[in-house]
Amino acid sequence: MKCKTCAAKAVIETRRHNAAFCTGCFCTHVERQVQKTVDTEKMLSKDDRILVAVSGGKDSFTLWEALHRLGYSTTGYHIVLGIGDYSPLAREKVEAYAKGQGLPLIITDLKEEYDFGIPELALHTPRVPCSACGLSKRYVMNRTALEEGFTVLATGHNLDDAASTLLGNLLHWQTEQLGRMRPAMEATHAKLVKTVKPLIRLTERETLAYTMLRGIDYHEDECPNAVGATSLLYKDILNQLEHASPGVKQSFYLGFLKKGRTAFAAHSDGITLKECEVCGQATTTETCAFCRMMEQARRRAASRNP
Amino acid sequence: MKCKTCAAKAVIETRRHNAAFCTGCFCTHVERQVQKTVDTEKMLSKDDRILVAVSGGKDSFTLWEALHRLGYSTTGYHIVLGIGDYSPLAREKVEAYAKGQGLPLIITDLKEEYDFGIPELALHTPRVPCSACGLSKRYVMNRTALEEGFTVLATGHNLDDAASTLLGNLLHWQTEQLGRMRPAMEATHAKLVKTVKPLIRLTERETLAYTMLRGIDYHEDECPNAVGATSLLYKDILNQLEHASPGVKQSFYLGFLKKGRTAFAAHSDGITLKECEVCGQATTTETCAFCRMMEQARRRAASRNP
Repeated sequence: MKCKTCAAKAVIETRRHNAAFCTGCFCTHVERQVQKTVDTEKMLSKDDRILVAVSGGKDSFTLWEALHRLGYSTTGYHIVLGIGDYSPLAREKVEAYAKGQGLPLIITDLKEEYDFGIPELALHTPRVPCSACGLSKRYVMNRTALEEGFTVLATGHNLDDAASTLLGNLLHWQTEQLGRMRPAMEATHAKLVKTVKPLIRLTERETLAYTMLRGIDYHEDECPNAVGATSLLYKDILNQLEHASPGVKQSFYLGFLKKGRTAFAAHSDGITLKECEVCGQATTTETCAFCRMMEQARRRAASRNP
Repeated sequence: MKCKTCAAKAVIETRRHNAAFCTGCFCTHVERQVQKTVDTEKMLSKDDRILVAVSGGKDSFTLWEALHRLGYSTTGYHIVLGIGDYSPLAREKVEAYAKGQGLPLIITDLKEEYDFGIPELALHTPRVPCSACGLSKRYVMNRTALEEGFTVLATGHNLDDAASTLLGNLLHWQTEQLGRMRPAMEATHAKLVKTVKPLIRLTERETLAYTMLRGIDYHEDECPNAVGATSLLYKDILNQLEHASPGVKQSFYLGFLKKGRTAFAAHSDGITLKECEVCGQATTTETCAFCRMMEQARRRAASRNP
């Protein structure tokens, strides 16, 4: 198999593009896909100060590496979740990468700054770990981006993530969520930062290959809490469809952006945001969901360890 | 396991209803599901003269049996497709059932009345067998219903059929088809008959069980042309989801009818129908797709066997 671009020996085949690439041309191809997404969805400009969410996995390293190579001004942002052996290793990989590249990095340790890591939140509130984690990450990412003066927050959601979220929302006809599914979300309130997902044209397999071919030392483990997650079933389902019909995953998600999304736009209109009476961040309720979770955790922890 | 209704020994469990039934109560349950669908979607009245499409398989026998037992005025309609050993056996089963029940039956033999069965249409036109078959059945069902003075045409599409069609239309964002997906389609033109799908609340497994428990001698074979059909992949995918989360297949399809369908309604508006210049049936083009296929088959067949 030869590289589609330079005819050198290919190292990876991408069936949905009906193409194969050598190491160098594949990395260029990935970065061009990122640039194309950034341009098509008007995600970023070279003047933006971009906070890049970096977990230490293949997706977030692909995002940081590609945006940096494409000439954007990036700062990494890592959240220490406090999950067993998983979190310390993730932090190590992120710090090593930032140091090696000479790129700025901000770290928030949930337990240090907010008293509770994910395991404690799962213990002291009714939320399952993935729910507590998602809420915490969305909250501290947005808050940090605003407080540190960044204009955009970039996250490493890939095509598999986006397509499986879309499938889940369609299976349950979550029309409000469908209306809000945008790879670039402009800030609709002074306390919200613009968020972008520049990897939605890349599959998990492609971000994995890019990370490896760029020689980045990433955190290989799945989070131990993800075992049995519905999103993994949806990803498996979509991979079966992709195997039978290469390209269907991409046309499903990009087709939604082009033709489906507008059908649900009306469902997500008319949401009024205000400032949380505790922390001042944007919320639809009096006290935001994060502050309510934290208050609940503090009360339960105190009653259990008086 | 005991019957949910009468506490007799259960013969079938339906996980999504969290219930089990004995033979009699299961059959009643199935017929009530049909009645509920008929009522909810305003499909039929007791004054309707209903033409029931009967292939000889489990779904169409469930439909005919249930509608007859519910007191509707039904006539069976069987199309002889001319497919190998499959079609003669199907016809036998349908004729035996109609005779046993003393119910009227109309038969159209495609090859006798239109010169070509499905194998010849697949041979002499660019269409694959399933495409030629679907087009032919839709055409002759509608035409026969009109010519014989029926007010409604009922077909045996079940929940698995409806959900897999929905999944396929969503994967490819066929917004026009999505807007037209209705279990009851009122006649929008003088040359169209109203069509209804009263089995969309029943799974394949349930129509199979009903047919067996009612002691109906049905045609067990899948059509030999269906092997490898995409719809079978979609059904398998939906069964995997159903296994992980009982009820998701039904909530996916019924949720679409309730919340998704309206989002696409605009996409299917504004289609102007006229009468085919050859046969006079409703069409969007000068000559309808069926007449064009037949003309093509006649020309090719003549040039091959001059």
